[in-house]
Amino acid sequence: MQEEGSNHWGRAERHGTTSGIRVGGSAGAEIPELVCFEKQQDWGGQWNYTWRTGLDEHGEPVHSSMYRNLWSNGPKEGLEFADYTFDEHFGRPISSYPPRPVLWDYIAGRLQHSDVRKYVRFETVVRLIEFNDEDKQFTVISEHLPSGDTTVEVFGHVVVASGHFSFPNTPELPGIETFPGMVSHAHDFLGAESLKDLDVLVVGSSYSAEDIGSQAYKMGAKSVTASYRSEPMGYDWPAGFEERQGIECIAGNTVTFGDGTSRHIDAIVLCTGYAHKYPFLPHELALSGPNTVYPAGLYRGVVWQQNPGLFYLGAQDQWFTFNMFDAQAWYVRDLIMGRADLPDAAERDASMASWHARFERLQGSSDEIRFQAEYVRDLIQQTDYPEFDLDEVVNIFLAWKLDKKDDIMGYRDRCYRSVITGTMAAPHHTPWIEELDDSLERYLAAARA
Amino acid sequence: MQEEGSNHWGRAERHGTTSGIRVGGSAGAEIPELVCFEKQQDWGGQWNYTWRTGLDEHGEPVHSSMYRNLWSNGPKEGLEFADYTFDEHFGRPISSYPPRPVLWDYIAGRLQHSDVRKYVRFETVVRLIEFNDEDKQFTVISEHLPSGDTTVEVFGHVVVASGHFSFPNTPELPGIETFPGMVSHAHDFLGAESLKDLDVLVVGSSYSAEDIGSQAYKMGAKSVTASYRSEPMGYDWPAGFEERQGIECIAGNTVTFGDGTSRHIDAIVLCTGYAHKYPFLPHELALSGPNTVYPAGLYRGVVWQQNPGLFYLGAQDQWFTFNMFDAQAWYVRDLIMGRADLPDAAERDASMASWHARFERLQGSSDEIRFQAEYVRDLIQQTDYPEFDLDEVVNIFLAWKLDKKDDIMGYRDRCYRSVITGTMAAPHHTPWIEELDDSLERYLAAARA
Repeated sequence: MQEEGSNHWGRAERHGTTSGIRVGGSAGAEIPELVCFEKQQDWGGQWNYTWRTGLDEHGEPVHSSMYRNLWSNGPKEGLEFADYTFDEHFGRPISSYPPRPVLWDYIAGRLQHSDVRKYVRFETVVRLIEFNDEDKQFTVISEHLPSGDTTVEVFGHVVVASGHFSFPNTPELPGIETFPGMVSHAHDFLGAESLKDLDVLVVGSSYSAEDIGSQAYKMGAKSVTASYRSEPMGYDWPAGFEERQGIECIAGNTVTFGDGTSRHIDAIVLCTGYAHKYPFLPHELALSGPNTVYPAGLYRGVVWQQNPGLFYLGAQDQWFTFNMFDAQAWYVRDLIMGRADLPDAAERDASMASWHARFERLQGSSDEIRFQAEYVRDLIQQTDYPEFDLDEVVNIFLAWKLDKKDDIMGYRDRCYRSVITGTMAAPHHTPWIEELDDSLERYLAAARA
Repeated sequence: MQEEGSNHWGRAERHGTTSGIRVGGSAGAEIPELVCFEKQQDWGGQWNYTWRTGLDEHGEPVHSSMYRNLWSNGPKEGLEFADYTFDEHFGRPISSYPPRPVLWDYIAGRLQHSDVRKYVRFETVVRLIEFNDEDKQFTVISEHLPSGDTTVEVFGHVVVASGHFSFPNTPELPGIETFPGMVSHAHDFLGAESLKDLDVLVVGSSYSAEDIGSQAYKMGAKSVTASYRSEPMGYDWPAGFEERQGIECIAGNTVTFGDGTSRHIDAIVLCTGYAHKYPFLPHELALSGPNTVYPAGLYRGVVWQQNPGLFYLGAQDQWFTFNMFDAQAWYVRDLIMGRADLPDAAERDASMASWHARFERLQGSSDEIRFQAEYVRDLIQQTDYPEFDLDEVVNIFLAWKLDKKDDIMGYRDRCYRSVITGTMAAPHHTPWIEELDDSLERYLAAARA
């Protein structure tokens, strides 16, 4: 630990794994001291929508990339918590593609159920983390945003669970600096109503482009153009929605594409992805891109190989989400508490090399889904996370991909069966394309007469 | 200094004021080692426009609050550098209210003239500064953004010159979270062309509201409404531009004001000001608001009273700008180099109390202008910054205020005389309200036929 008695700041000394707090939960085990630093006012992470863009009420980068009218773009049966089901939370079947507030409610319900609020310091940002080689402890410097108070504490382990879909990747497009229309990154996109009657360009060919383009279409954009670099999304888009390759230049409101064609554009949404960014970590501890299902340097996808007191959750590209994060968290918990053994560095290297070789052989997204299922299976086998039918989840994901190919504007009306409870989803009372009210109240209400 | 030999990071030891570099400038004086950390790719600070909003290409908060079509909103004769005149830079008279690229060019010309680029580390952000009581040194932890490399260095003095118009203050307005139109803070406003034919609401009654409202009018907004809390701006606005008191609520596209009236709004620009925010400073060293011409805790407006190794430049509300920053910088330079004596804490307290008593007696903006002139005069008297006619600058500011009262859409066509060179400004070839091209090339070109 640093000798900081003379430091300008007061320096509390906390040893995350030694000064335990005895808590009744978790099968009566002794729980280490646990502090969760959360920048936002409330929990829910990415699902905690805010109307603010860019910087939040404290001048910190806005975390959530959600827009008001986002609905799940994958079936909820692929992400269901194995120990807290949709049935348990809602008490009745709901549809397979709920809107944002419904999923936030589900996450919040699970958190309340677990009684973990007491571990969270809200509106507190981690400014910097230092690792001390001598005693293998992490010094965590944080700031309570409402007061500005700086706190310095020492922990034995650090778990980075801040995600990697918060810091926009914004390429420089030729001429964009003088584009007179609206321009923003998907991260700052709030809703598609303001795109009504406009010619809209979405730059990119991944989920943000697909969904924001679809939202613009749904909300009445005059036209939607999606530009791709290498491969088009290739869906059977409705009239007024098209894909073009590349952007040559932007001059005034005219955008010229790779094939030499051009068109008038009123609004540009950069759906150009996100960067791994952890401003609170020194270079040596910070994961960098690219965004893949098996990022280099993380043993079992969670342990920072160069410093196994540091863990990342959800750092990979994701087909599985909530339940994968769970399996990761269970395993990290067990490593920290000594319930699971961490292999030595050479063995970890060998494991990563083996998984990486499998990763290198993947051919497209269906392979990635199967790969990630095996990855989750491996994690669950290390812990007591409830087992669930991963093969059937793979089948659901593969069917979902076909649904989208079949009807990109209608796939959210399909229903799937929970692999946890066996419950068949109930169709939403209104087709997605006609549903303009994304609220929880509307979703749970009976269909309008 | 911290004992950090075992730290995970390499830790270079630099003593800002001791390991001097001998440079020929500045009358042959020995110049201390000097490192300027600049987050942006280029210099110019606030005047360095970017089309990006929210977060920049490295995921850092965008510094500049400029919009494409910003023109100086005060006469350039009030901000002229005393040692680098507009005449020297442009070689001929220009108008009193140049657009942004012209002022950036002037600043850049002065910087090139001074040959200071070698002191600047661009694309390098300061993550955290620590002060060590024992040896009175500052540890500065910075990150080179393109590489992610973390550097730790020690300096004897720190000068905070990052300004206080970069972090938006964004109040929660009732109902804004479901407003379906465009909403952004002035900080992220890029240009008014996209407001054409829209009903625009600017929230606020200070410079941003005045100017962004005027830009919206100029660019063809269907209507402009400015909402104020206590006092309207009170200018003689043109038809289609009005002020209303307060915002009761926002429901859909309908905004209801304090007087119970309501109107349809398509776009909201929050002109609600900025917060003092220095995320790289611990609480004890960070200046906080409010934004006034004499902030508490700064001796002579620049020396952090509680730790006189720390300085702030331009931390006050500003009538004077570039030349005031100069006078401040000259004085801070002389303190650091021992050319000027720093009084003891009691004497500094007495000085601040005396100035604060004068500040408390100020009645309105004309008084503030005179106060700030006296403040600048006091600084110049401590240094060898070239004297200039501060009383005449006050007269120019007072006339400018009358010009705005007289013609808020035309005041930028008026001309003033430089107090440095005696040169009378030359009218711009096109009235501001008709000039849609804000480029340097257009500004310096002859009028279009």
